[in-house]
Amino acid sequence: MDVPSEMKALLLVGDGYTRTPSGSALEAMEPYVQPGAVAVPAPGQSQVLIKVSLASINPSDVAFIKGQYGQPRVKGQPAGFEGVGIVVAGGDEPYPKSLVGKRVAFATGVSNWGSWAEYAVAEAVVCIPLLDTVRDEDGAAMIVNPLTALAMFDIVKQEGEKAFIMTAGASQLCKLIAGLAKEAGFRPIVTVRRDEQIALLKESGAAHVLNEKAPDFKAMLREVIKTEQPRIFLDAVTGPLASAIFHAMPKRSRWIIYGRLDPDTTVIREPGQLIFQHKRIEGFWLSEWMRQFRDRRGPAIMEAQKRFSDGRWSTDVTAIVPLDEAIGRVPAELAKPNGKVFIRP
Amino acid sequence: MDVPSEMKALLLVGDGYTRTPSGSALEAMEPYVQPGAVAVPAPGQSQVLIKVSLASINPSDVAFIKGQYGQPRVKGQPAGFEGVGIVVAGGDEPYPKSLVGKRVAFATGVSNWGSWAEYAVAEAVVCIPLLDTVRDEDGAAMIVNPLTALAMFDIVKQEGEKAFIMTAGASQLCKLIAGLAKEAGFRPIVTVRRDEQIALLKESGAAHVLNEKAPDFKAMLREVIKTEQPRIFLDAVTGPLASAIFHAMPKRSRWIIYGRLDPDTTVIREPGQLIFQHKRIEGFWLSEWMRQFRDRRGPAIMEAQKRFSDGRWSTDVTAIVPLDEAIGRVPAELAKPNGKVFIRP
Repeated sequence: MDVPSEMKALLLVGDGYTRTPSGSALEAMEPYVQPGAVAVPAPGQSQVLIKVSLASINPSDVAFIKGQYGQPRVKGQPAGFEGVGIVVAGGDEPYPKSLVGKRVAFATGVSNWGSWAEYAVAEAVVCIPLLDTVRDEDGAAMIVNPLTALAMFDIVKQEGEKAFIMTAGASQLCKLIAGLAKEAGFRPIVTVRRDEQIALLKESGAAHVLNEKAPDFKAMLREVIKTEQPRIFLDAVTGPLASAIFHAMPKRSRWIIYGRLDPDTTVIREPGQLIFQHKRIEGFWLSEWMRQFRDRRGPAIMEAQKRFSDGRWSTDVTAIVPLDEAIGRVPAELAKPNGKVFIRP
Repeated sequence: MDVPSEMKALLLVGDGYTRTPSGSALEAMEPYVQPGAVAVPAPGQSQVLIKVSLASINPSDVAFIKGQYGQPRVKGQPAGFEGVGIVVAGGDEPYPKSLVGKRVAFATGVSNWGSWAEYAVAEAVVCIPLLDTVRDEDGAAMIVNPLTALAMFDIVKQEGEKAFIMTAGASQLCKLIAGLAKEAGFRPIVTVRRDEQIALLKESGAAHVLNEKAPDFKAMLREVIKTEQPRIFLDAVTGPLASAIFHAMPKRSRWIIYGRLDPDTTVIREPGQLIFQHKRIEGFWLSEWMRQFRDRRGPAIMEAQKRFSDGRWSTDVTAIVPLDEAIGRVPAELAKPNGKVFIRP
């Protein structure tokens, strides 16, 4: 395949980390990424060059372009952590070479050449050759969310309690976890912000769905916690909602923070619970999990692909936005609930 | 020894837990304990009856009488978790019987018969027969603080980093830990509230002593953390001071809360640090540690007694207050810095 020397991409405006953290919503693209043309990168020895078919937009991408993620931005490089595409060139090593011509799901990780571009560079070992039965929409969202779902559900299973709590229940991630939980006989308790999400989530596998905006939310929460005794709290929001949930949970509960959707102050309502009730507060980051559990990564990727192939998992699509229209359209599409937004280069 | 049928004691006013938590300072005794006469208790099969020589007042006692500790109050029962005295009667089992006539350090734990009384009941297994070389003042403070010190320093040693941070550095507990740390080549960083405590703490074994009230405290803190890279934070205060310290600590730091001296709101300043820097927040409670590490308890008690016998540890005494004068005098004596207050029945 002929590879041009230049390509279109959405390039990072900022460098490093921000000094003024803001919320997790993307109010506009312009302050963070700008369209531009850059040289098509050359893959390193262990890397591949991918012609991107579809790139996903995850909450981690939004945090990253704002300078609020766990790795620094490099100004002028393309954004985008994840996508699907065709490998058009490989580094000198045998494995990258063997991928040329294959359709793969990929994550760009630390390569600094993101997926919001016509071409992207990724480490060959984090590319997943796709079965034909996997849709592009599922392939482009096969790494970040699915691995996070499998990794966090591992934590739930290790703890042993059947019930657990999740905030931001209507996210793609929580739906994946709810599906895993239902199959394994676990009982997810999830919070949402809209009544119309309740039926959707129950179908996905949630045992209880609570609308955090309902006037009787706190009473319902206490009731459900009393009945179900959940000890794991997978939290994407922090702030007052998460504080209230953790405070209401029983002895030995673990508040596992993996997202920061609410930029409001996060309070430990009763530190005495950490002393006398052995409660704990910790975090989850997929990159850290992958470092710690290298041997879990391969099986988890296989598992994810199987689930997307046989239809047990499926990615809900809000919009597929052409790269040229991304600056103008992405913020409004992202603001819509219940599905994922993709960029098509 | 003749045991009377009645005894004087300081009896709990409240029942269960408080609904209105207050600070850790003891503004007055009357709302929480009242002097009274009750029947001398009979020890159970595994218990002993002790004629109390000296009873200690720990921060945990203050939290308990206020209904802010991890176990419920029983109205009308004597307060006081710890003391020293002579065993005057034992239950039917051989071990309690064998202790009769011996001077012991004791902890009342779950017996509901506290040490702020002429007689107390304790489980025989948590009584420590004392060497003659151990002073009553050290014997009466030989369980709660020394075991907490040894248990928490175990956590520091397991982590491996030489430097660690402690708030409320001038407490008896922190001085014990500083002594352990110095011997083992560790480098405690402690915060105090008065300049005159700085020299005292350096002598006890602290590598750095920071006055939290000093105008350059935050800058000094950042500097020391940068140099020493401490990852364990043993925290007795919570509130804004503790939040600021945890926020300034490096990746993989653990905030271990064991006290609540500052009743002010405790904020997680940047929850993203829990996600991306693998920081954690947890608690420490001696009762929980004793449950989890039964086999560490015996050696730790031996170790504590050795240290008090050979003078490596010594309890600083602020005052010994007769039981009859305790209601009026204890709050003012407790408010003095640097030493322990005892009640003599």
